[in-house]
Amino acid sequence: MASARKILNLDRPFPMRRGGALQDVQIAYETWGDLSFCNDNAILIFTGLSPSAHAASSTEDPAPGWWEDMIGPGRPIDTRRFFVICVNSLGSPFGSTSPTSINPATGQCYRLTFPVLTVEDIARAGHEVVTSLGIKKLAAVVGPSLGGMTVLAYCALFPEGARALVSISSAARSTPFAIALRSLQREMIRKDPAWLEGNYASDAIPVQGMRLARKLGMITYRSAKEWLQRFGRERANAERKPGDPFGIDFEVESYLENHAVKFIGQFDPNCYLYISRAMDLFDLADHGGSVAEALRRFTVERALIIGVETDLLFPIEQQQELADGLSNGTRTVQFARLASIQGHDSFLVDMDRFRPVITDFLAELKLANP
Amino acid sequence: MASARKILNLDRPFPMRRGGALQDVQIAYETWGDLSFCNDNAILIFTGLSPSAHAASSTEDPAPGWWEDMIGPGRPIDTRRFFVICVNSLGSPFGSTSPTSINPATGQCYRLTFPVLTVEDIARAGHEVVTSLGIKKLAAVVGPSLGGMTVLAYCALFPEGARALVSISSAARSTPFAIALRSLQREMIRKDPAWLEGNYASDAIPVQGMRLARKLGMITYRSAKEWLQRFGRERANAERKPGDPFGIDFEVESYLENHAVKFIGQFDPNCYLYISRAMDLFDLADHGGSVAEALRRFTVERALIIGVETDLLFPIEQQQELADGLSNGTRTVQFARLASIQGHDSFLVDMDRFRPVITDFLAELKLANP
Repeated sequence: MASARKILNLDRPFPMRRGGALQDVQIAYETWGDLSFCNDNAILIFTGLSPSAHAASSTEDPAPGWWEDMIGPGRPIDTRRFFVICVNSLGSPFGSTSPTSINPATGQCYRLTFPVLTVEDIARAGHEVVTSLGIKKLAAVVGPSLGGMTVLAYCALFPEGARALVSISSAARSTPFAIALRSLQREMIRKDPAWLEGNYASDAIPVQGMRLARKLGMITYRSAKEWLQRFGRERANAERKPGDPFGIDFEVESYLENHAVKFIGQFDPNCYLYISRAMDLFDLADHGGSVAEALRRFTVERALIIGVETDLLFPIEQQQELADGLSNGTRTVQFARLASIQGHDSFLVDMDRFRPVITDFLAELKLANP
Repeated sequence: MASARKILNLDRPFPMRRGGALQDVQIAYETWGDLSFCNDNAILIFTGLSPSAHAASSTEDPAPGWWEDMIGPGRPIDTRRFFVICVNSLGSPFGSTSPTSINPATGQCYRLTFPVLTVEDIARAGHEVVTSLGIKKLAAVVGPSLGGMTVLAYCALFPEGARALVSISSAARSTPFAIALRSLQREMIRKDPAWLEGNYASDAIPVQGMRLARKLGMITYRSAKEWLQRFGRERANAERKPGDPFGIDFEVESYLENHAVKFIGQFDPNCYLYISRAMDLFDLADHGGSVAEALRRFTVERALIIGVETDLLFPIEQQQELADGLSNGTRTVQFARLASIQGHDSFLVDMDRFRPVITDFLAELKLANP
């Protein structure tokens, strides 16, 4: 398959926030559009937990990207106007250095010898790509979910790094409820006997643990309201297998099964564990003593915070906290509280609500050379 | 240990709603207080998924019951005034016939040969206890969670069975969101290799599956709001084990681990599967074509519906649906919408909010011989 993927090879050690350092780090990314003469039109996008850098299609890779409706000519993140970069998170297995990579010091895969991963490390890897492209200051840094946390980390680590930020369904830190859910997902994988303390073969991954973790993910990424409208008490079409009293009865159970089966093999279990834990560990208060002080120190001129009322994992109160913390009387802060019913995943599906908000915000970003 | 448990032995077959019949059925129950001369002061209590019939302490069994603060002399369900009965659900392993019982036809444990269990079967088993005690009509039938569903089934099956009902954090039927969560809990148990298709030995139960299922239960029984207040981002005291990068970091993870460990061995996995599925299958619309019509046919004179705003599993809209459906202009229907932050489990912990509501409702129940 054609690929638009570019790789940045770092020729110096990459120290990790919680200790250790990676050698020969690679960061995969894709770009769309052209950098302007004065390098002022770049938008950096960080992803959620599982996507690759392929956020949108291109001539090199016509396959639809994970945010296809959002990025492209004439789309909200308009590639006729902006130079758009999406990075594959450090720790994620789609081209960036991750637990699946070979440790050059040993010639073996890192697996659990990979150092503790933090959101700040992901942000700093993205910053390496930005500087390698000759960009001093981004027009905007944008991200949903984990990507939104990475946006916050980026602004905390690189005060002059971006003129604007867009945080979507994100948070300054995870709630204990979200931590509990992710901790349980990790336990599902780790307690699968096939996990083998991380030493599974590539053709014998802990399928059962990944299936359960993905199903719990799907349950928490959507909302009870959506499913009530969508499934109600509809029964599954499939005939119940005789002698299986606990098989699939309801359509919602089929839906989860189908999604889980699709996910297996798409994402490396060890990478999942590292990135999931990075989300738990992230705390913007580490950058100033409190969330409020960390946000106060941000130097972005404009901020757009988007939150969804039905989001269980990143509840709307956490979006409000970000908007309140960024409002300092001089900065332009827009808080879009959306009534989407698709929960945390709304940014991927409820495009009719998300598109205009992002279009309008970016339209007001002035560029030196329009 | 002393026990107040009584057993009703049925000497005729007990036909099950979805097919099959049980022989030699036993129903375990406990009682508190005395039946009045005209047998009009009996309150029947159905339980949630996992408790036994030991709802409160007594001289025979001084151990605190699962609803100790609610039942007793001078308590909201006042045993000086009422004769209180609590039944162990059919299918539950605390004395009633269940998948752990010996099938008299084979001499073997039922395990997965136990017929499909429904909430209506649990209600009918409770009714057998009531009639065996010479009671024609209950003063009230009361239940939280699954017990509330059983209350609704009881009123649908036995139109003249009770003068009043109290449904707490219950529903006319499960939402697809609740079904998805329970289905996932069942899958965790069934996919534990130690489950052995239900044929585990009593000293080798599927511990890992039960642990995961219990943790997911705890997450959905409480609320994000409570945990934010209670745990915030508090770190666990325990030292992290070196070399275990995915062990316990946060206090909320310790809390779940401690609760899960306590639950293991307390409840039989196959019984859990049967009762959990009964909750999914229950649909009050089966008793009249629609939920509204089923509720319209109820003949209780008084109804108390209690719901909690932070309940994820039985959301407040479902409580409103019950209250609305029962209001027919002549019946006294009280809907208590409580702001408890402990989610679905509030009826077990937020006693200061629950006690007065139940006290006041029962105080207005007139008895012939006070």
